Amino acid sequence: MRIAILAHEQFPNHAKTAIGILRYSDHNVVAVLDRTKTGERVCDYVSDVQDAPIIEEMSQVSSEVDALSIGIAPIGGGFDSTWRSDIQDALVNGYDIINGLHYFLEDDKRISRLADEHNCEIWDVRKPPDDLTVSDGTADNVDATVVLTVGTDCSSGKMTTSFELLQTARDQGIDAAVIPTGQTGVMITDRGIVVDGVISDFAAGAVERMIKQVAAENDLIIVEGQGSIAHPAYSGVTTSILHGAMPDGLILCHAANREAIRGYDHISLPPIDEYTRTYEQLSGLVSPAKVVAGAINTHHIEEAKARTAVADYAAAIDAPATDPVRFDATKILNAVLK
Amino acid sequence: MRIAILAHEQFPNHAKTAIGILRYSDHNVVAVLDRTKTGERVCDYVSDVQDAPIIEEMSQVSSEVDALSIGIAPIGGGFDSTWRSDIQDALVNGYDIINGLHYFLEDDKRISRLADEHNCEIWDVRKPPDDLTVSDGTADNVDATVVLTVGTDCSSGKMTTSFELLQTARDQGIDAAVIPTGQTGVMITDRGIVVDGVISDFAAGAVERMIKQVAAENDLIIVEGQGSIAHPAYSGVTTSILHGAMPDGLILCHAANREAIRGYDHISLPPIDEYTRTYEQLSGLVSPAKVVAGAINTHHIEEAKARTAVADYAAAIDAPATDPVRFDATKILNAVLK
Repeated sequence: MRIAILAHEQFPNHAKTAIGILRYSDHNVVAVLDRTKTGERVCDYVSDVQDAPIIEEMSQVSSEVDALSIGIAPIGGGFDSTWRSDIQDALVNGYDIINGLHYFLEDDKRISRLADEHNCEIWDVRKPPDDLTVSDGTADNVDATVVLTVGTDCSSGKMTTSFELLQTARDQGIDAAVIPTGQTGVMITDRGIVVDGVISDFAAGAVERMIKQVAAENDLIIVEGQGSIAHPAYSGVTTSILHGAMPDGLILCHAANREAIRGYDHISLPPIDEYTRTYEQLSGLVSPAKVVAGAINTHHIEEAKARTAVADYAAAIDAPATDPVRFDATKILNAVLK
Repeated sequence: MRIAILAHEQFPNHAKTAIGILRYSDHNVVAVLDRTKTGERVCDYVSDVQDAPIIEEMSQVSSEVDALSIGIAPIGGGFDSTWRSDIQDALVNGYDIINGLHYFLEDDKRISRLADEHNCEIWDVRKPPDDLTVSDGTADNVDATVVLTVGTDCSSGKMTTSFELLQTARDQGIDAAVIPTGQTGVMITDRGIVVDGVISDFAAGAVERMIKQVAAENDLIIVEGQGSIAHPAYSGVTTSILHGAMPDGLILCHAANREAIRGYDHISLPPIDEYTRTYEQLSGLVSPAKVVAGAINTHHIEEAKARTAVADYAAAIDAPATDPVRFDATKILNAVLK
């Protein structure tokens, strides 16, 4: 599938959906829309993903695409009205829309009418199936190793670690699958349920259901976590995934040098060992799991310091750790399978 | 307001919404519908609430009412088609419907059409406002003491304790309010948001918003908790309320002799001290709060053994405890205000 990705004013540092698609999806990205970086290229900013030109608006896309993907996920998931013209341009040209916002474009009358007129599909990725229910508390019955990526914060590498681990496992011939739980993961895998868009009562049930759906064909199931137990807004989502998944092990993901909760400068990150203790204690109430490995994002640190950061982090969590993007995920896979 | 309460096959032990309304609301309950107990009375089963006849179906209600209230909340919140005739009878007579199920009667075409025809209102209590968003992590800024009832399980007395504590505080002249977070609490107070019906991302934000709305007029804010951090399906809701409320203290509610999670016989209740430790650790990651008091439901135990159960429970949580229904909530209030 050929796609354009909308990431106005946010690429690359606040466009984690765009980066995720560029890095892990099978889609061919024809262009990235960011009106503040017109004329530049993806590779000017991010080196280890597929390259694409950065353009000002949808009308400048040089070739046909199959869809326009909304590649940013602002806090709250709201819609920015300045994106409307790009979406309209896409629809007028017959391109589908893939939307990960909480704001459903299907319910936007102007947009959905235009989609109908031009025979386009709108996929509101965050709209949950309407037959969800509560969990049975039985995900631990599946005949596969289940690991869950948990974090010290939002945007701490849970999605990235999940897909890096998937690739490493598959490279070793292991039947593995990622259970995506966020808009980016769902956009990458073209399936799954965005758990933070599910009503709270059914969030754990949604995770349990996804695990059971893929358990028969996989020996390793990597559940993508969300948020953090220390996050003032998203900790409920984190807990629902933890207890819905009933994992065998946890991978704690952390962004090096992060000091406060992202977007909540008044709330400091607790010490790392508070996270391991609380995650293990909380999971133990329903189905015990230990932090078996750690992933740390050292992207903004020079190599030597990154190695020190990894070693310090491994000591803090008392488990093997690495930066799965900078180095690779073998250490994490070995710890998970031990 | 005069109401009838539907509680077919569930009264009284599985009809906690019905009991809550009978005990704490200002509504005049004209009848309870339970086809398995026709001809009996509420007082045959529950002594300390308003009395009413138990009847077979809506057509037998002897006087006019203002509304039919769905007074049961099965796991999953589904709709039982055998209730349809009662709802239709109510609407045909011009009575409103108050519905706490996840199944929205407003979206049921037959029911909503009938409501329109007879000029009746349907209040789907669990339908959240559509302008919710994520929490700011600032509920601890309010100029009031905020306490949260947390539990060892569902149906462990969080709602009951909240309203008993409210009454005791008001009796002492304290400006106090309950923040209801479940269908029963919202039905009792005629306001509030049913948090388990809110999408996970916004659950903490909903609690924060409700606290800020009542903070100016109250010195004591009692937040009704939901579920339990040890619950395989609802722990996410529990965590969202804990971190959204940023309370000054926690009241741990427990049903005496409960051994397994209600509805999940394969999952044992952890020891009490695991709850206090985990609740305190989890709250401490965002905004520290201790378990300052305990409430234990000893309804099914004889008096002498109940007193022992209370003493044992106080020792287990290392804080003052009582059964606020059997005795009263003064001990809890004193601990909260200390």
